Amino acid sequence: MVPFSVTILGSNSAIPTLHRKPTSQLLNLNERLYLIDCGEGTQVELRRNHVKFLRIKAIFISHMHGDHYFGLIGLLNSMHLLGRTKPLVIVAPEELKRIIHIQLLAANTRLSFEWEFRPLTPNSHTVVFEDSALRVQNFPVKHRIPCHGYLFKEQEREPHMKKEMIAKYSIPAVDIVKIKKGGGFALNDGTYIPHEKLTTPNDPPRSYAFCTDTLPLPEELPKYTKGANLMYHEATFLNDQEDRAKKTYHSTAVQAAKVAKACAVDQLILGHFSTRYTTLDTFLTEAKPHFENTDLALEGRTFEIG
Amino acid sequence: MVPFSVTILGSNSAIPTLHRKPTSQLLNLNERLYLIDCGEGTQVELRRNHVKFLRIKAIFISHMHGDHYFGLIGLLNSMHLLGRTKPLVIVAPEELKRIIHIQLLAANTRLSFEWEFRPLTPNSHTVVFEDSALRVQNFPVKHRIPCHGYLFKEQEREPHMKKEMIAKYSIPAVDIVKIKKGGGFALNDGTYIPHEKLTTPNDPPRSYAFCTDTLPLPEELPKYTKGANLMYHEATFLNDQEDRAKKTYHSTAVQAAKVAKACAVDQLILGHFSTRYTTLDTFLTEAKPHFENTDLALEGRTFEIG
Repeated sequence: MVPFSVTILGSNSAIPTLHRKPTSQLLNLNERLYLIDCGEGTQVELRRNHVKFLRIKAIFISHMHGDHYFGLIGLLNSMHLLGRTKPLVIVAPEELKRIIHIQLLAANTRLSFEWEFRPLTPNSHTVVFEDSALRVQNFPVKHRIPCHGYLFKEQEREPHMKKEMIAKYSIPAVDIVKIKKGGGFALNDGTYIPHEKLTTPNDPPRSYAFCTDTLPLPEELPKYTKGANLMYHEATFLNDQEDRAKKTYHSTAVQAAKVAKACAVDQLILGHFSTRYTTLDTFLTEAKPHFENTDLALEGRTFEIG
Repeated sequence: MVPFSVTILGSNSAIPTLHRKPTSQLLNLNERLYLIDCGEGTQVELRRNHVKFLRIKAIFISHMHGDHYFGLIGLLNSMHLLGRTKPLVIVAPEELKRIIHIQLLAANTRLSFEWEFRPLTPNSHTVVFEDSALRVQNFPVKHRIPCHGYLFKEQEREPHMKKEMIAKYSIPAVDIVKIKKGGGFALNDGTYIPHEKLTTPNDPPRSYAFCTDTLPLPEELPKYTKGANLMYHEATFLNDQEDRAKKTYHSTAVQAAKVAKACAVDQLILGHFSTRYTTLDTFLTEAKPHFENTDLALEGRTFEIG
C-alpha cells in the first residue's frame, strides 16, 4: 500500500501560543501533498516539519474564523516569492477569494502561479476536488458561521492481475491494461474469460474524515464519514465546560468520542484544544471510555490512515 | 529620564523562517507600548518577549507588503478574544481598513474594543499620532509601493524648577504649575521674575527614526530624521547585491550607514535582512567603516533610545 498519512501542524483553538499553534494539517498521499486549514504561522510549521511546501497541490479551508485561515495569504505570498509556477487549488468559503484578491492588489502583486479558487456553498455535500489519487468531499458541520468538514478518500485502485492467468492464457501487455480497467479476455477459440477470474480486488480505498469547529453531530456525520479509517474531530473543551461548548458551537472530548463511535471509524484524533487547558491528558481520560482508539492530534505528530 | 526603548520582534525580509521573523518592533516609552509593523506571527513574538499586548496603544504600519502587516488581523482577533476594551489606534495605508473590515465581516465578529483607523496619504509628512508622552510623524520613503517611515519623538517635557528659587521667593504650589508651563512669577512688590531665571530646561526630547523598505535617501531623510538618537534603517542586502537592492527598491548595509551619517543620528540599527544571508556579521563589517555606531536589529534585542 502506498503511504497515506496526516501530520498535525497546529492543535490549538482561537489564539496561537508559543507551544500550540492554530489549526492546520498536512495530508500526504504517496508524496502528493494537500493542506487542510491554514492558521497564522502555518508556513513556519511547514518548515519546522521539513515540508517542501511548494509541492502542496490543494488547500482546503473549513470556515472563515481566523484561526483556520489567517496563515493562508502569507503562505501564498511565500510560494510566490519562492517562484512557484505549479497551479494551486484553493477550496474555501467564497468570502476568502475577495480577501486574497484585495491583499494581492494592495501589494501590487500578481502571483507567480495560477490559483483556482473553488467556492463552497454553505450546507453543501459535493465532490470539491479530485485527482488520480484522491477524491475530496465537503460536508456540513454546525458552527457559529458556515463550516465544512472534509472526507479525503483514496481513489479506487485497479485490481491486481492473477499472475497464473497471464501465463495460462499468454495475455499480452496491451490487454492487461484493459483487463485492469474492468475488461475480460477473449481467447482465440472464442472463449471469453471474465474480469473476475483474471484479477483479485485491490485494497479498499482508505479515508480520512476532518471534522472541525462543530457541535457534536452523531446523527448527521455517519452519513458522510461512516467507516473512515481515521477521524479528526475537534474537542475544544472537557466535560467541565460542556455548557460553554454548546454556547460556542464546539464539542467536548466525550462528545467527539461518541461521534467517532456512531461513525464506526477505526481511529479518532482530537484537537482544537482551548487555550485554558495547559495539559491535555484528561482529553484522553474522558474520551477513551466512549471510544478506546483515541489519540491527541498534537503538533508534529503523524498519523497513518488505515 | 524615563525609559524609552525599542524591542525587535522580527528582523527578516519577505519570508518568515524558523529563526528570523518578518518586521515588527515594540516601542516602550515609560511602559506605554506602541507597535511598529506587524508581520505574520508578531503576536507569538510578543508572547515570547513577555509583552502584555493588550496594553499596546497604537499600531503603525509602514506599507502594504505582507511581511509588514499579515500578522495584524490575528493580533486584533486575539485582543478581541482576550476581551480588550481599551480603544486602539491603527495608523496605516488606507487599503488596510477594508482588508480588516471584510475579514471581521466574514467571521461575523464585532471587535470587543473600538479601533480608530487613521489612513496615510502617500508621500505625506504629518503628525499622525500624539499623546501626552509621544508625538509621531510619518515621512515618505521610496519603495515599489507607497511606503512610510516614522519618527517617534518624546513630547517636550516641563522644565525643572530651581529649588533655591522656590525657597527664595516662597513660591506657592499653584504658581509652580504655571511656571513649569512657561510663566514667570510676580513678587508682592511688583518685581517680575522671568521664567528662565526660575527653571532649568529638561533633557531634550529623544527620538527614534524607523526607515523601512526603501531605496537609500541620503538627501531626503535628513529633513525628517536629523539628529535622531536612534535610527532603524533597512539593509536587505550586502554590497554583493547592490544591483538587486536598487531593482527591488531596497538598501544595502553601506547605503544605510551613509544615510545614518547624513542624518547625523547617534546610533544605527540594521534589519530586514534577505533570507539568502544565514550569518549577518558582514552587515556590520560593511556598514561600520561608514558609520561606526551600528548594530544589528535582531529578534529579542532591546535598544535604549538616547
